[in-house]
Amino acid sequence: MTDADAEPGAGEDAEAGGDAAEPIDVDFGEDGLVPAVAQDADSREVLMLAYVSPAALERTRETGEAHYYSRSRDELWHKGGSSGHTQAVREIRVDCDADALLYLVEQNVGACHTGHRSCFHRTVDGERVGERAFDPDEVY
Amino acid sequence: MTDADAEPGAGEDAEAGGDAAEPIDVDFGEDGLVPAVAQDADSREVLMLAYVSPAALERTRETGEAHYYSRSRDELWHKGGSSGHTQAVREIRVDCDADALLYLVEQNVGACHTGHRSCFHRTVDGERVGERAFDPDEVY
Repeated sequence: MTDADAEPGAGEDAEAGGDAAEPIDVDFGEDGLVPAVAQDADSREVLMLAYVSPAALERTRETGEAHYYSRSRDELWHKGGSSGHTQAVREIRVDCDADALLYLVEQNVGACHTGHRSCFHRTVDGERVGERAFDPDEVY
Repeated sequence: MTDADAEPGAGEDAEAGGDAAEPIDVDFGEDGLVPAVAQDADSREVLMLAYVSPAALERTRETGEAHYYSRSRDELWHKGGSSGHTQAVREIRVDCDADALLYLVEQNVGACHTGHRSCFHRTVDGERVGERAFDPDEVY
């Protein structure tokens, strides 16, 4: 390191990367999937959590639009492919253990199939805290 | 609905809850765990992703401090119990499928064992984007 103030401790860091930026080897685990959090890149609202396969990550990087793996349909899932509520991915981050992803996105309309901007629109006590973005009856 | 502007479509919503707030029945799945995202309640930075068992959720609600389930140690995990980097939980949200949680927290010092404020301090290309909050050699 030539500039210790800019990157304190980076030299001693046990994580992959070290001095030069090198692609992180994502740990897809036993089922071949990692959880991915989608966050609005501007408002920073957490929009949803879904799962990503190696192919979904590859398609996301290739197209710049968020792809996931649908566990219920057991297939690659282009978010917004049918509804039009796509997510333009501005940046992909990975956590310290490389077994979770963070998509920083520009969300078109709303992320949730219920019509809310975010899938996290309720407290665990059932209080509604999220904003409605569209009428799901008109979309699905 | 008597006031469509206040809660459009809430009456037709298929989700549990309806008009009155009722606790959500969290779906802990086959392995008894749900992924939980911890987000800074003020800056809205996504801090980490970990897993929560029914007991961890119960302890979080009882104590107001974030608890998770450590899959590597196979035990209930009070975040910051040894490091002091606790998370005061301001609100717990649940997603539309009730199989993921969002903890809105006040993070003491930093969430990541590497000394960063957030575990998501790198892009998938290995670029460092996160802020250092402490020196891990002095804490662990």
